[in-house]
Amino acid sequence: MSVKVLVTGGTFDKEYDEITGKLYFNSTHLPEILKLGRCAVTVSIDTLMMIDSLEMTDRDRERILDECSRCAETRLVVTHGTDTMEVTARRLGEAKLKKTIVLTGAMVPYKFGSSDGLFNMGTALAFVQSLPHGVYVAMNGKCFTWDNVRKNRSKGTFEELDA
Amino acid sequence: MSVKVLVTGGTFDKEYDEITGKLYFNSTHLPEILKLGRCAVTVSIDTLMMIDSLEMTDRDRERILDECSRCAETRLVVTHGTDTMEVTARRLGEAKLKKTIVLTGAMVPYKFGSSDGLFNMGTALAFVQSLPHGVYVAMNGKCFTWDNVRKNRSKGTFEELDA
Amino acid sequence: MSVKVLVTGGTFDKEYDEITGKLYFNSTHLPEILKLGRCAVTVSIDTLMMIDSLEMTDRDRERILDECSRCAETRLVVTHGTDTMEVTARRLGEAKLKKTIVLTGAMVPYKFGSSDGLFNMGTALAFVQSLPHGVYVAMNGKCFTWDNVRKNRSKGTFEELDA
Amino acid sequence: MSVKVLVTGGTFDKEYDEITGKLYFNSTHLPEILKLGRCAVTVSIDTLMMIDSLEMTDRDRERILDECSRCAETRLVVTHGTDTMEVTARRLGEAKLKKTIVLTGAMVPYKFGSSDGLFNMGTALAFVQSLPHGVYVAMNGKCFTWDNVRKNRSKGTFEELDA
Repeated sequence: MSVKVLVTGGTFDKEYDEITGKLYFNSTHLPEILKLGRCAVTVSIDTLMMIDSLEMTDRDRERILDECSRCAETRLVVTHGTDTMEVTARRLGEAKLKKTIVLTGAMVPYKFGSSDGLFNMGTALAFVQSLPHGVYVAMNGKCFTWDNVRKNRSKGTFEELDA
Repeated sequence: MSVKVLVTGGTFDKEYDEITGKLYFNSTHLPEILKLGRCAVTVSIDTLMMIDSLEMTDRDRERILDECSRCAETRLVVTHGTDTMEVTARRLGEAKLKKTIVLTGAMVPYKFGSSDGLFNMGTALAFVQSLPHGVYVAMNGKCFTWDNVRKNRSKGTFEELDA
Repeated sequence: MSVKVLVTGGTFDKEYDEITGKLYFNSTHLPEILKLGRCAVTVSIDTLMMIDSLEMTDRDRERILDECSRCAETRLVVTHGTDTMEVTARRLGEAKLKKTIVLTGAMVPYKFGSSDGLFNMGTALAFVQSLPHGVYVAMNGKCFTWDNVRKNRSKGTFEELDA
Repeated sequence: MSVKVLVTGGTFDKEYDEITGKLYFNSTHLPEILKLGRCAVTVSIDTLMMIDSLEMTDRDRERILDECSRCAETRLVVTHGTDTMEVTARRLGEAKLKKTIVLTGAMVPYKFGSSDGLFNMGTALAFVQSLPHGVYVAMNGKCFTWDNVRKNRSKGTFEELDA
């Protein structure tokens, strides 16, 4: 079973620039994360963009959808900023591809040590291998369907729409 | 959906004793791991034993099976040393409980920073929520069924029996 | 021999706020750092302020000088943001107190794991115990005198004025 | 000012072998530690041996003394296991070289994340630059002279002989 990971940026991949004192994007930490997890699943990684999800445009989302649709794999993980993860999930979900797509991200940059990114990537890789076709959000150890998820901005956690 | 985690020890939970220079068991790091992962799944943790899996006896395995059988939850994660994880998986699998049971562990102690434990726990929690009744081993990002898994001791990874 | 540590903030003590995605100050990590270093030196810690050193005013510097002057200890470490560390060092140096005062800080927040803060605090504590009265900056493993140090902003390292 | 670091092994440099589950020596982490500390001191590193200090022989100590004596640098840091650090310090101290030699080590391996090694190396590098000729042990943030130091084995800390 082979899995495609599409990288779009988000807190997950942010780093600290010690000269400017600001957070920025360099390259993705996915290979390091999969190595740390001794992951033996066949995974191919494509970096589509490296942006904060608040800056993601409709055009960016079309590009993600296009890539999900065109690639050979039927199981995909999309790493994504948490702020608009639900928007992208909806766009992908409405397209009704015959694929299993799991979006995930992190509340704390992976490089800051106390990150949820390693844990979340574990859940995303497991859900993408075990769930039927559909679009899901894997955050906080849970799996949400694309049409029933939102980020609770004050708590910093994901929940069902009717929670 | 509520998940029971049964802790049995293994490399996962080992610590370094700076006085003796040896590895030892203190208490489980599961609560810390779930907090780090911002896990919002309802999880109850029971420490059954804290042992190296090379020292696990048939009697210990009966105790694990007994606990899996008796508890109210139908979804269980069992943390376990990797050396005899396949033996315990077989014992639990042959019992054919109407529950989903996922065994997991780590090759490096969680406390040593470069651990696969956080990642593996993510995969185990995801598999236990998404898979049908049965007994599984979640290691290296993969999910193995109890009757088709072994540890490759020279590589330190898990594989199918016919690999 | 007892050492006073005056905390003023700086990158050293910054944390990541996972709700806002911004860096902020909570309380100092000094006690945690000294514990990690198994430090057995008698140290008393006073948090004077928790600010970015770019925001430090002359009035703040008078307060630091006043505290250095009034306290019973003759050996002091001052944690400080790196951007204006040389300015505060000069103010303290010109006062010619009969004390040994060492300023130090970090380029990366201690909480981000890959921090120079733990190392720098080690050097500062050693220099403060071994150097004669005077005001010094301990950064990059080196010890600079207050009247011959500046931050090289493009490199992010400290150097002599005539370097 | 240039500093020579002689590596002899000790807990400082131990790693965890995930196949055997035992601690072992690979190569020294000194370059990584100095990089993490953004150290700008001119340091040259020589690995003399990679052993547990309980296994260190008189012959090994002669080799360390010989190297201290022969090298061009007059300021040396020796990384060493804590169990017999006081014995090597005494051998070096009795030789009365016209050099400043600081022995240091760690109670927890650097690679295990919660190590005192990074902090101790900071103190050792600072003491070696600021102290007069002599042989010292830098542990627990303190600096001991070679003829007045011992490891308190039950506490895991260093202290004066008359403590």
